[in-house]
Amino acid sequence: MNKLLAVGTIAFDEIESRYGSSGRVLGGAATYIGLAASHFDVDCGLVSVIGGDFPDEYLQLLRDRNINLDGVEIKQDGKSFFWKGKYHDDMNGRDTLVTELNVLESFDPVVPDQYKESDVLLLGNLHPGVQIGVMDQMTSKPLVILDTMNFWMDITMDLLKEAIKRVDVITINDEEARQLSGEYSLVLAARKIYEMGPKYVVIKKGEHGALLFHEDKKFFAPALPLEQVYDPTGAGDTFAGGFAGYLASTGDYSFENMKRALIIGSNLASFVVEKFGTERTVSLESSEVSERLNEFKTLTAFQL
Amino acid sequence: MNKLLAVGTIAFDEIESRYGSSGRVLGGAATYIGLAASHFDVDCGLVSVIGGDFPDEYLQLLRDRNINLDGVEIKQDGKSFFWKGKYHDDMNGRDTLVTELNVLESFDPVVPDQYKESDVLLLGNLHPGVQIGVMDQMTSKPLVILDTMNFWMDITMDLLKEAIKRVDVITINDEEARQLSGEYSLVLAARKIYEMGPKYVVIKKGEHGALLFHEDKKFFAPALPLEQVYDPTGAGDTFAGGFAGYLASTGDYSFENMKRALIIGSNLASFVVEKFGTERTVSLESSEVSERLNEFKTLTAFQL
Repeated sequence: MNKLLAVGTIAFDEIESRYGSSGRVLGGAATYIGLAASHFDVDCGLVSVIGGDFPDEYLQLLRDRNINLDGVEIKQDGKSFFWKGKYHDDMNGRDTLVTELNVLESFDPVVPDQYKESDVLLLGNLHPGVQIGVMDQMTSKPLVILDTMNFWMDITMDLLKEAIKRVDVITINDEEARQLSGEYSLVLAARKIYEMGPKYVVIKKGEHGALLFHEDKKFFAPALPLEQVYDPTGAGDTFAGGFAGYLASTGDYSFENMKRALIIGSNLASFVVEKFGTERTVSLESSEVSERLNEFKTLTAFQL
Repeated sequence: MNKLLAVGTIAFDEIESRYGSSGRVLGGAATYIGLAASHFDVDCGLVSVIGGDFPDEYLQLLRDRNINLDGVEIKQDGKSFFWKGKYHDDMNGRDTLVTELNVLESFDPVVPDQYKESDVLLLGNLHPGVQIGVMDQMTSKPLVILDTMNFWMDITMDLLKEAIKRVDVITINDEEARQLSGEYSLVLAARKIYEMGPKYVVIKKGEHGALLFHEDKKFFAPALPLEQVYDPTGAGDTFAGGFAGYLASTGDYSFENMKRALIIGSNLASFVVEKFGTERTVSLESSEVSERLNEFKTLTAFQL
């Protein structure tokens, strides 16, 4: 079985929106990535850090899905990362109300030996120094996928560019692609980012879908139009986890297979937003996944 | 040859953007619709009104493309409709600087006899009273496509709803769909609008593509990611003109063919935005159109 290693936060989230407040719930990029990747025939390990305050039932929920947590460090006297945000009424914008880094401040990731030879490495949104630290520990030459955010561009752009230079795929949202490249047009932005290193550039547009650029080729995966978007938290991470999980399970990193991975990631992400936090994801049946995948097929299929 | 009748403005536009000012140029919904429809094997007539100030070279430009202008009234002592707008730097939003209705204020459209039996009737964005007046003159039962704007919702919503009740297809942008339905989700908005009368609901999302809803089916046509958007003026009308022109030329109003029409309209619209006003459209070669259509095919094509 192929191996996927994902690095990212395992955390507490608290989400407010027009639909109310979630209270303190399970969150974090690595959590969503792991849950998404667990839909595929892949050996998925997480590298992260949590405090002594983190409930074992949350960890058990991940272990139950065969997600390996050997790389999750528990700092008994520390507190877990906590993020609290409030979504605007249109569910597109959001304001961060609280960010408590806690144990993340001194995070020094250690890759377990059995994952140093992973086939795919997914670097979730973290300090680029941490992302580079993980790449340096790999003994195989995995397909490396990097996710990042405007936050790191604001405070440590040079180091971020060093990390980006070394990866195969970057996933980034539209505004961030513009910030990173200095280009407004996403076509021009993708070209500049491509020249920075990654041979595959994925630009996430949220409810407007995602674009994949490679050489002079481009592909567009729509987002499924939904009746209700309840909570967008974790959609980007779920997309990345589904994308990476599918690629790792197939071992095929061609452009054609990347296209499939984009659709499959978008499909999984479409569920997450239907309830608060991980609620919808953890109850997700594979029959629901394949049924909705058919909706994706018909959504853009036409004959000319 | 099947007949398409389109009602809308023929006008002067003046466009300002980060790329400069267009000066006073040929514009108007019917102009863009006619130019788009002229790409298809269809007998296209326009119903509109202009003033004595309108240059004959602009009319000749339309006639040269076999667009019939028998329904264009010339009020010799009146001035043509004039619109001036300024696009925001991101090219998405725009502010209207000047709107001079002029001859449009007293527009009483008269459908030429030979177009009263048209196969397709496209009601461009105009006062709903004018749109109803044109429907009343038809002796055939054409496929009726209505385009409208938030402006009419603000000032004459009841009459607009009367018009909408009588049409087969409505094309409307996302914000307008939300305003018309009172629903934020486009899926729910489309369902409510469907219940108002139109059996096909097209929601235009500009650079994010267009959605088609019919019964419980939906289809998404992407917009082509472009290197540069120079001037979005006329993109929606060109989309509508291509959509209607293709439907009229084929005489096939099935959902499958509507999907094709959506793609074909999006394809034509992708050219308009590359230069100021109608500049790109009037120089457009059919080889360019078919070449870019292939890009649309590959943009969303995937095998699962």
